[in-house]
Amino acid sequence: MTTDAMTTGQAQAPRVAKAAVEAALAELNGLVVDTEPLRVQRRSRDFHWFSPLLREQLDHVTADAIVSPADEDELKRVLAACYAHDVPVTVRGAGTATSGQAMPLQGGIVLDMGYLNRVLAIEPGWCRAGAGCVMGVLDHALRERGQALRVHPTTVASATVGGFVASGGAGVGSITWGTSSEVGAIRAVRVVTMEAKPRTLELRGSHVRLALQSWGTAGVITEVELPTAPLTRWLERVLGFATLEAALRFADRLAHADAILKRLVSVVAAPAPGRFLFPHGVDEATHVVLVMVAETAGEALTELITEHGGEALSVAGSPLYDYAWQHTTLHAAKHDRGWTYLQVAYAAPDPVLEVLATAAALTPDEVIPHVEFLRMGGRVACTGFPLVRFTTDLRLAELMAAHEAAGGVVHNPHVFTLEDVGPGWGGKAKRAFKREVDPKNLLNPGKLRNAV
Amino acid sequence: MTTDAMTTGQAQAPRVAKAAVEAALAELNGLVVDTEPLRVQRRSRDFHWFSPLLREQLDHVTADAIVSPADEDELKRVLAACYAHDVPVTVRGAGTATSGQAMPLQGGIVLDMGYLNRVLAIEPGWCRAGAGCVMGVLDHALRERGQALRVHPTTVASATVGGFVASGGAGVGSITWGTSSEVGAIRAVRVVTMEAKPRTLELRGSHVRLALQSWGTAGVITEVELPTAPLTRWLERVLGFATLEAALRFADRLAHADAILKRLVSVVAAPAPGRFLFPHGVDEATHVVLVMVAETAGEALTELITEHGGEALSVAGSPLYDYAWQHTTLHAAKHDRGWTYLQVAYAAPDPVLEVLATAAALTPDEVIPHVEFLRMGGRVACTGFPLVRFTTDLRLAELMAAHEAAGGVVHNPHVFTLEDVGPGWGGKAKRAFKREVDPKNLLNPGKLRNAV
Repeated sequence: MTTDAMTTGQAQAPRVAKAAVEAALAELNGLVVDTEPLRVQRRSRDFHWFSPLLREQLDHVTADAIVSPADEDELKRVLAACYAHDVPVTVRGAGTATSGQAMPLQGGIVLDMGYLNRVLAIEPGWCRAGAGCVMGVLDHALRERGQALRVHPTTVASATVGGFVASGGAGVGSITWGTSSEVGAIRAVRVVTMEAKPRTLELRGSHVRLALQSWGTAGVITEVELPTAPLTRWLERVLGFATLEAALRFADRLAHADAILKRLVSVVAAPAPGRFLFPHGVDEATHVVLVMVAETAGEALTELITEHGGEALSVAGSPLYDYAWQHTTLHAAKHDRGWTYLQVAYAAPDPVLEVLATAAALTPDEVIPHVEFLRMGGRVACTGFPLVRFTTDLRLAELMAAHEAAGGVVHNPHVFTLEDVGPGWGGKAKRAFKREVDPKNLLNPGKLRNAV
Repeated sequence: MTTDAMTTGQAQAPRVAKAAVEAALAELNGLVVDTEPLRVQRRSRDFHWFSPLLREQLDHVTADAIVSPADEDELKRVLAACYAHDVPVTVRGAGTATSGQAMPLQGGIVLDMGYLNRVLAIEPGWCRAGAGCVMGVLDHALRERGQALRVHPTTVASATVGGFVASGGAGVGSITWGTSSEVGAIRAVRVVTMEAKPRTLELRGSHVRLALQSWGTAGVITEVELPTAPLTRWLERVLGFATLEAALRFADRLAHADAILKRLVSVVAAPAPGRFLFPHGVDEATHVVLVMVAETAGEALTELITEHGGEALSVAGSPLYDYAWQHTTLHAAKHDRGWTYLQVAYAAPDPVLEVLATAAALTPDEVIPHVEFLRMGGRVACTGFPLVRFTTDLRLAELMAAHEAAGGVVHNPHVFTLEDVGPGWGGKAKRAFKREVDPKNLLNPGKLRNAV
């Protein structure tokens, strides 16, 4: 994180001239274009409001028009026109990300990918879909063929596959299949370049990484090819524990149990479960672990729960991932917008101790631990999304420092550029690719600070 | 390991009196009984001859009769009769284990479980079969329902599910699903006790461990319930590398690649691949990695191979696991009975360095590294089955010490008691269970030294 990025105030990007946008739109006869200001503003937003800092910095951001190409040919016409008139283009899936990544800092055009939403192929072990295909729709189509998505965000009902690749990262299923960064996690993406004559590139294998977590800055993703998992019936359990340590130890044990097929292992510390997630059924002293495991592992799960002093709670809520990952934050923020979050990677050898050390150093009035277990590079890892009661920028910076002092690595979610989010974002190879596919830096400008 | 156990010479167990066996057999009218000495001796053996020490100690071992019960009722009659007349009973599956575990040290009866071989249930995610069911037969039945065994030994074509549980451990598939010791790895076993009135016990969940790796000393396993994996199409590749380190680094990288579904990752150092495994297609300077990954991961695999300087070799041999695990040893021993093996667990943080340190300290004329990658307790681990050119007992002990000096933990495969095999075998809970289900210590006597 950088101190610069912590400074509040509106993002100071130069706005594209109206005349340029109008000139570009004039070349797009026959395309679906929306310039009605309220609708345009609504579709220029994402879940940036999870962060009070981004709320202040980005709330004014809006595009000049939303363009919805019907297919790749129309998309190329949009890109060529915008290239000719130097109009910024920001690609948007469902707008479910939280870093303002789909928000057009310099105005211009927001590309709605909603029509490029076809399921293109379902084969044994893999599938391919248009970037605008909603992940839940794809999962449903897979289900009929005995397959399922391996990893998806908790917003699967609205998030698109293109947005998933562009924002990258992990989610439901990562406890078995790891993150999108793993070799083989994404088979291929098809990308259209932002040039006078837009080209189509098929990135396969490790080349996928060039477009991964790029927030739409590195070409426009039009198709995605993903490996699939076999369809599995899942048990969902909300488990109560008397102490945070017991909850974490149980989750850590389960995360390491190779013979139990897992989809979700989330720890939410008290008082969040009783206050924000399950007010009718969990008291505020109870720490919970949210678990999804294969139905056939029920007996083994029950034994582990008993061994660790846990208790299965009777609370409604299916799918259970609606309470995990960023949905945990959503429930807290819906309860009171004063709650925001941090993102912290805990490292080996004992992430549980790091989480406990952080918890001991802070009070649950201000910070409530929330940890997702996943696999990363072949190892069980855990990523914290602690709920944070926001007061001031300075205090938020202090809380990040406190998490780092306890051994965590903070990925700052309160900034809107790739470089500021944390280590590993926006590296050299990506930058070179960016220059190749978007020489004028018109794709989502401002998100990659050193793009030019 | 103990020095005692290293002493060669025949196992000095008292042999049961002929009269006692005859008295027991007299009560078994109508059962299939074989007393023809040559056939009895052949079915009193396993792959103990992998070890020159066990060969010397156990080669004379033979039962007095083979009894083949048709069902559990007949089995109970056998056990009751043997209990009444103090006749030892040694359960045998297919005799594919290598520690002499199915060999009747004190004579008596060898129980052939071949008729208790029915597939009893195939449900989504699990199956159940009689102990004598050959694993390959069960796998075939599963295949028709879109499922497969998760883990099996390389001897799947002959090994029985009962024998698999009784010998425990790991095998093909453990790189994804871990070992039999994992919680949930074996759903249940049904066991008949060795008492005046034999009882039937259903061990579920963690209670399964009481009968796991017990070599038939803790009740007679009659049924096994296993979780299954979804049926997957596998790619098989024999990959050549110029150095052992490159081969190990590639294997380690692949083992940690969560998005690549794996079934086999085995490293066999030069000159073994060219000399013992694939004499027509691999030269003796080449180190190989044997790989089975899901067909859909082909592209990702190819990238990893290229990154690590590997090369796909054109050699025949399917299924590929016929060259891995203990089959590697088998190929070497078939070539020349002077080759035997050790079993070494390499520990974190970098097992590759430990394998290399051992290799550097010894010459390939005497020790050829062979390592299987697997998951253990949620982590990638590797177990070595180095090929060893046998000279003397003393030298073998020195070689074990050399492996331990480099950081490995040796599980001595040249002994025939559970306690001597290595840490963790034959613990306290198992001993208590043993006393409960076999109060006279008649089940496979001599394998659990402190049974009485």
